[in-house]
Amino acid sequence: MQEAVSGLDGGSLILLSKCLQSSNRGKHCTFWLWPSSDLNQVFGLLLLYLSTDNGLVESLQSCPATNPSMLNVHLVPHTHDDVGWLKTVDQYYYGGEDLLMSDLKHAGVQYILDSVIDQLQKDPARRFIYVETAFFYRWWRQQSQSTQRIVAQLVNEGRLEFINGGWCMSDEATTHYSAVIDQMTLGLRFLNDTFGECGRPRVAWHIDPFGHAREHASIFAQMGYDGFFFGRLDYQDKARRMKTKEMEMLWRASESLTPPLADLFTGVLPNGYNPPEGFCWDQSCDDAPIRDDPDLEDYNVDEIVQKFLNASYRQAAFYKTNHIIMTMGSDFQYENANLWYKNMDKLIKYVNALQAKGSKVNVLYSTPSCYLQELNLANLTWPLKTDDFFPYADDAHDFWTGYFTSRPALKLYERLSNSRLQTCNQLEVLGGPKSKSGPFGEGDSDTMSKAMGVAQHHDAVSGTEKQHVAYDYARRLATGWAHCEVQKHKLPFILHFSMNVYNPLGRTVSWPVRLPVNGSVYSVTDANGRAVDSQVGNVFISLKCTCYIYDMKSSCLLPLLSVRWFHCLSPHRNESFQKNEVMCVFVLFGNYRYNASAGNNKESRQTSGAYIFRPNSSDPFVINKTAETQIVTVSSTVQEVTQRFSPWVSQVVRLYEGHRELELEWTVGPVPVADGLGKEVITRLDTDIKSSDYFYTDSNGREVLERRKDYRPTWELKQTEPVAGNYYPINSRAYIKDDKHQLTVVTDRSQGASSLYNGSLEIMLHRRLLYDDFRGVGEPLSEPGEFSDGLVARGRLLLTLSPPDTAADVHRPLAQGMVLQPLLSFQDGTPSANTKLEFSGLQTSLPPAVHLLTLSQWDKDTALIRLEHQYQAKESKTHSQPVTVNLQKLFSTLEVLGASEMSLGANQWKEDMNRLQWNTEKTSKPLPLSAKDPSPWEVTLNPMEIRTLLLRVRQL
Amino acid sequence: MQEAVSGLDGGSLILLSKCLQSSNRGKHCTFWLWPSSDLNQVFGLLLLYLSTDNGLVESLQSCPATNPSMLNVHLVPHTHDDVGWLKTVDQYYYGGEDLLMSDLKHAGVQYILDSVIDQLQKDPARRFIYVETAFFYRWWRQQSQSTQRIVAQLVNEGRLEFINGGWCMSDEATTHYSAVIDQMTLGLRFLNDTFGECGRPRVAWHIDPFGHAREHASIFAQMGYDGFFFGRLDYQDKARRMKTKEMEMLWRASESLTPPLADLFTGVLPNGYNPPEGFCWDQSCDDAPIRDDPDLEDYNVDEIVQKFLNASYRQAAFYKTNHIIMTMGSDFQYENANLWYKNMDKLIKYVNALQAKGSKVNVLYSTPSCYLQELNLANLTWPLKTDDFFPYADDAHDFWTGYFTSRPALKLYERLSNSRLQTCNQLEVLGGPKSKSGPFGEGDSDTMSKAMGVAQHHDAVSGTEKQHVAYDYARRLATGWAHCEVQKHKLPFILHFSMNVYNPLGRTVSWPVRLPVNGSVYSVTDANGRAVDSQVGNVFISLKCTCYIYDMKSSCLLPLLSVRWFHCLSPHRNESFQKNEVMCVFVLFGNYRYNASAGNNKESRQTSGAYIFRPNSSDPFVINKTAETQIVTVSSTVQEVTQRFSPWVSQVVRLYEGHRELELEWTVGPVPVADGLGKEVITRLDTDIKSSDYFYTDSNGREVLERRKDYRPTWELKQTEPVAGNYYPINSRAYIKDDKHQLTVVTDRSQGASSLYNGSLEIMLHRRLLYDDFRGVGEPLSEPGEFSDGLVARGRLLLTLSPPDTAADVHRPLAQGMVLQPLLSFQDGTPSANTKLEFSGLQTSLPPAVHLLTLSQWDKDTALIRLEHQYQAKESKTHSQPVTVNLQKLFSTLEVLGASEMSLGANQWKEDMNRLQWNTEKTSKPLPLSAKDPSPWEVTLNPMEIRTLLLRVRQL
Repeated sequence: MQEAVSGLDGGSLILLSKCLQSSNRGKHCTFWLWPSSDLNQVFGLLLLYLSTDNGLVESLQSCPATNPSMLNVHLVPHTHDDVGWLKTVDQYYYGGEDLLMSDLKHAGVQYILDSVIDQLQKDPARRFIYVETAFFYRWWRQQSQSTQRIVAQLVNEGRLEFINGGWCMSDEATTHYSAVIDQMTLGLRFLNDTFGECGRPRVAWHIDPFGHAREHASIFAQMGYDGFFFGRLDYQDKARRMKTKEMEMLWRASESLTPPLADLFTGVLPNGYNPPEGFCWDQSCDDAPIRDDPDLEDYNVDEIVQKFLNASYRQAAFYKTNHIIMTMGSDFQYENANLWYKNMDKLIKYVNALQAKGSKVNVLYSTPSCYLQELNLANLTWPLKTDDFFPYADDAHDFWTGYFTSRPALKLYERLSNSRLQTCNQLEVLGGPKSKSGPFGEGDSDTMSKAMGVAQHHDAVSGTEKQHVAYDYARRLATGWAHCEVQKHKLPFILHFSMNVYNPLGRTVSWPVRLPVNGSVYSVTDANGRAVDSQVGNVFISLKCTCYIYDMKSSCLLPLLSVRWFHCLSPHRNESFQKNEVMCVFVLFGNYRYNASAGNNKESRQTSGAYIFRPNSSDPFVINKTAETQIVTVSSTVQEVTQRFSPWVSQVVRLYEGHRELELEWTVGPVPVADGLGKEVITRLDTDIKSSDYFYTDSNGREVLERRKDYRPTWELKQTEPVAGNYYPINSRAYIKDDKHQLTVVTDRSQGASSLYNGSLEIMLHRRLLYDDFRGVGEPLSEPGEFSDGLVARGRLLLTLSPPDTAADVHRPLAQGMVLQPLLSFQDGTPSANTKLEFSGLQTSLPPAVHLLTLSQWDKDTALIRLEHQYQAKESKTHSQPVTVNLQKLFSTLEVLGASEMSLGANQWKEDMNRLQWNTEKTSKPLPLSAKDPSPWEVTLNPMEIRTLLLRVRQL
Repeated sequence: MQEAVSGLDGGSLILLSKCLQSSNRGKHCTFWLWPSSDLNQVFGLLLLYLSTDNGLVESLQSCPATNPSMLNVHLVPHTHDDVGWLKTVDQYYYGGEDLLMSDLKHAGVQYILDSVIDQLQKDPARRFIYVETAFFYRWWRQQSQSTQRIVAQLVNEGRLEFINGGWCMSDEATTHYSAVIDQMTLGLRFLNDTFGECGRPRVAWHIDPFGHAREHASIFAQMGYDGFFFGRLDYQDKARRMKTKEMEMLWRASESLTPPLADLFTGVLPNGYNPPEGFCWDQSCDDAPIRDDPDLEDYNVDEIVQKFLNASYRQAAFYKTNHIIMTMGSDFQYENANLWYKNMDKLIKYVNALQAKGSKVNVLYSTPSCYLQELNLANLTWPLKTDDFFPYADDAHDFWTGYFTSRPALKLYERLSNSRLQTCNQLEVLGGPKSKSGPFGEGDSDTMSKAMGVAQHHDAVSGTEKQHVAYDYARRLATGWAHCEVQKHKLPFILHFSMNVYNPLGRTVSWPVRLPVNGSVYSVTDANGRAVDSQVGNVFISLKCTCYIYDMKSSCLLPLLSVRWFHCLSPHRNESFQKNEVMCVFVLFGNYRYNASAGNNKESRQTSGAYIFRPNSSDPFVINKTAETQIVTVSSTVQEVTQRFSPWVSQVVRLYEGHRELELEWTVGPVPVADGLGKEVITRLDTDIKSSDYFYTDSNGREVLERRKDYRPTWELKQTEPVAGNYYPINSRAYIKDDKHQLTVVTDRSQGASSLYNGSLEIMLHRRLLYDDFRGVGEPLSEPGEFSDGLVARGRLLLTLSPPDTAADVHRPLAQGMVLQPLLSFQDGTPSANTKLEFSGLQTSLPPAVHLLTLSQWDKDTALIRLEHQYQAKESKTHSQPVTVNLQKLFSTLEVLGASEMSLGANQWKEDMNRLQWNTEKTSKPLPLSAKDPSPWEVTLNPMEIRTLLLRVRQL
């Protein structure tokens, strides 16, 4: 889409950027993309480049030469730098002080980058890829201008290549797509601002995450990546793929988007992300260096060369082309890059020297994108993949399905923080510059944005980090919250206060509010002074607030013994909850626990731990067959049933007047372990739905995948763990259905779920374990609670029952409402007279199918907006249709002067996206068609489509 | 001494060299010293230097500026690179593959030097010192010319400084001065050949050896070193020195040489050779890096700066000047030098920044020689030290006196190898070029020279290395032997063979020979066909050979059932051994063992191990009170008594006709340990000599020091280990005496010895232990023998009894004869007719006081000779006098064309030696006077003096 232009000064800047990026699309060039609002910055960067040794701004096609008649071995020097795991992200950055893991005790990323940049300069043939922008950003800021110049030159010449490029390498099982897109955008923007087009990663690189979500592949495709490589997949799947040479494939990652929109070339790396055995030359490795001085002892060149040739041929047998890739690096390697490069230099020299004697192996330094380019040139037909890579098992009893639920409190806090960040971003756009320093306090979304960036890491929200690191993530998020405070908010323990509510969704929602109070009689009124129904219970006041779009109520006044409050009637008032229908279908909802394997099982020593779920029996234990049950009617609009199963498991069941969903508020913990058994607590919903072996789980909160017990779509599964081997991650929902009914559970955070019986759906809520599970974290997952006991976790599940063909109409908005929650804030007394008591940022409610995914300030005069069609193709008769939004009729306080469409990652103009094309097997499924935009100002969204637009805006 | 010149072409070369080194003696300059015989080489090197960035050959006074009104803290970045210890020297060079010690598992010196050279280039303020030339040499050969150029420039500018500079950092307790001088010369020559004057180390640096020998200090002084620093000394001594600020002193290291010939400024380093606590930034350390980014967590600049100021003031309290030195490094550190320099850069920046706020601490990168220069400028009076630093204890029960004896077989082999090396060197000079490839085989002394160079290391001949490393040293020596073979020699299991004998001493010796044979009747004749007395015993033939100077008998023909043999009458034939006198004095010579402490003692957990000697009782156990004794008279000239004390301890006592000494050939092992007790076997000689608490031990085989039980000359000893705390190293001899008698024991290798009772002298022979002693080697000292049992060690002690005032006349030549043993070689049948059957390299025997310490080929036309006065001042009425040698009347086959005197290390002209001068306390002892040379060709040696001369020679 061409930019729709109105206004002048913005236009000239965009022309400049067009000129700058006019180039051909070689692998490496040095132009800038952004319509930067600061010309000095643009020229400053240009100057920086012009002053590099090269002297000229030019494009470079920098991939190394290969030999078409030989087996080309692409050595890819890389480091895998966890953005927190055994140490916090900043501890990893500086290095030192981790006494627990001697091999990684330094793991200082500052030194890795220092060292690699030094070593790259020693030989133009050497290459390096760097992945985690959270680290690179820390390092870059501390470098001198001359070092920055050198690095820019290395990037321009393709010697240093950014791969993946997000703020972190996100987890795929426990992240929400909203936060994933944000963290990728954060990292990619830094690279683009700093290095221009040459800094744009072409390849997605998820070498460590423990299973791979289809939605991630879809996101990468929409971000313009040409390919994707990863290291971990089910060991049975891998064995089969090696045998059939299906290690590389085309992943069609959406059933809604028109191919090749969500198609992504995907490669399984041969050795995880490690080098082949015997060729690890990092300081943390034990392999012999190449000893090529015949005058010294232990000359080993011939032996090592032969071993390498063998390894190369062995690997080549599993791949289709005469190119293979070897990942030369691992966790926090290259702190002393000389060790690696010195030995690889020798390896290349001595292996290639044998070509003169007839050897057909050609080794070279390379990068994933150069390797990918060779695969593309091979012009083969690649196998098609349409499901995902969950669950991940690395052996028969080693299913990595525990981390779907590990650290439930952190997982919730991360999700709430995302809501807060979106709110913060929106307010910065709507409030304009004054929102950063005014009545809203220090409204800086940057801190939260970075805290959320690291929280997406595959050892962060995944719950697989050490305890002290988990605390660090939480602390970072808390700091983010503080920086996003638009008003001082504290809990109203006084009798006279006002509250405002901000609704970040693009449509009206109804929202129950419970506040702790110390009075017993309150009168609540809304902004217009009308009385609001409320009920004071035991230390809580409950009330319900239905908020219109972008309401900023600064004045829910609560005078003496009264509450003033804005009450909006629900537009869905008439669709009241069908109690009887639910009661008839729900046979049972009960709480169970699995006892964790302690590693003393005769089949395997595998324990349950932060990563691994392995119950010591396939049948869960009922925590208590009977529960103390108390029925409380809090108000005319809420009914509550409290169930207490044991001192450490209880549940509140709530029905809200005017709501279709049943709320289960579960409380689990401290999980007792005095009996020597770790425990993994589930809630199980047993219904008479004839679901057979099927159930459904979402992928990163977006599209839903069909699951089937003891089955994988792409290979003949040999099931070895009847419980753990059937668990899948859910990020927003799971459901079971038959012809008549669909039971959907919407969750407040990522969890593990399964259906092991006909009509049954189970969700794991909390885990407390006594053993480490041997995957490196070195701690049992036993989170401490407030009083030196185990952690108490609490959360909500929303259950809805609908006919299958209208279920999405309910669970889609319900889930988005769970993700983006209204923001409450408080102040003492009554707002001043000139306080605006009502405000809406949108002119009108968005169409039901449209979700406002992103609204955030970009540059001074630009805002980034992402509009999303939140329904899959065919899932809703009403909503699974193209829908159009007029950008100029969107905002109530902003004038949209121009709009340019970008890739999903916002680091490329949409029109410049020109991804590699791949041939694949024909599919029998009909391909979705997509509708077009009717005009430059009107954006049409097809099912599941996300449109990313850079808007030039002016405050009205 | 000016060169004595005769001949022409040599002269011109020397003129060139004089011109080249005409310069002032600044710390750094770039001139060459050698009268190289290859002009191209000289000009090539000059060209190399002229082409460096600097463009000009110039002198640089490169020490960093200091601040006279502040406390100057000299940070000395350094690495301590053992030339073998836990890994072999080549394993340490290449790195990798030691799985036993995770911290040092890489310890790759190649990477250390790579990394340091990179880092030095980043900032001209940065300094580094390098010590071990065995490693530097390996690295240098593998570098490109451009890297070599960069390194040369760094050396010229004083940024890289060589310290110590020998092939290794030699052990001080178990080495012989001959081998120490050789290994120093080997290293220093490489540095001089490569870097010229700027590569000459000014400071001796023995930071790790476990006690310090006075002879080493004397050697360093004579080599021109300005100062000496070490790390280890007795903990009581150190505490006292800290209290009295005597950590730095002047060491007067000889009682014979005229001061300041053997005076050496000596400093005790504050923290061994480690950095102060909390400031170790190597990858092998755990200290926090300086985290100076306030935006990241754990900012710690203020805390670290304060800690450093505290450490500086604490240290300054123990030293006299306003300069202190901090060793910033340790074992195999700086493999990733960036970690160190990056943090030290920050330390210097932030500590010195406080000067603006009144701080009086000034930190700077420095080197030991720059630090030493500041001490010298302080112009203080320093305390005087005249004894040595043995034994070394680091705690009350932790005496490092076990290694004096550890690995007795390796210690013997090293000593025999020295003899072989000297022989090899001599033959290369005497034989000329033809000696390298002719009838003598591949006569290359270089391999042996380097093998001996590493064998002097303080974890080599010391016996404190791991077993596999001990094997490596032995293997290297064996390869050296092979390269020194002047004839194929194999044991004569045939009946018809000839033998030749080479005597490397400068005088006639008489030498008993025992050869294994398989015949029973042999006839032996000498070169002149005269019959030689011989006796065939059980598989051995014994005979005695007295060889004149430089005899090369290639024709000791042994025809059928006969032996042909050269028999020389002893010049001392009339001084035959006084049997009765000996028998009267020897009360007992018996064998004992100490049982080793197993660490279960209530006072201390210290065990006996490779380093530490700690018996579990002060009284040794008699191995057997009675012995199976067998008297055998082998021949008319040899009498033998065989004593068998136990299956694993036996002894042969021999008396040779015409010899004054009694030979004890001891055999110990396999030491049984099935009783769970490690054992340390001694031989004890109990006499009626009234020695009281006094005994005497040599220092590195030269001067003798007085020892006194439970006493140290320089501090009030609190004795805590009555046995181990009284052990001292002996390298060549020990004695006890009273007014009438002196019993001297001459040893064949280095051992530990003591006198714990009046009239008693004990020598530790062998050790087998069951526990590691916690000093890092990580293995119990339990050497395997041939048949998976413990090692059997065998050796000889020569006992002489004399009046004290003539004892030296006997033990000096006896000890030299033990060190330089005749070389036997064999061939089948009879030598060809034109074989020269007799040859002498010297025109005449050297004077009795003169020892030919070194004779080795230097360049094509030059030879290095060291002549030594082998008597101390006053120890012999006859010989402790100046003695003169005429260089032109020395050799029978060489014409001496010129002679230039050099420093002992042969890396500086003697006339250019201009060491720093130091003020010290006045001593009451009379200072020795020295006699002068009567003419340019005549070299006068004063007692204990060594003269090092480069001779220009021509084969006659």
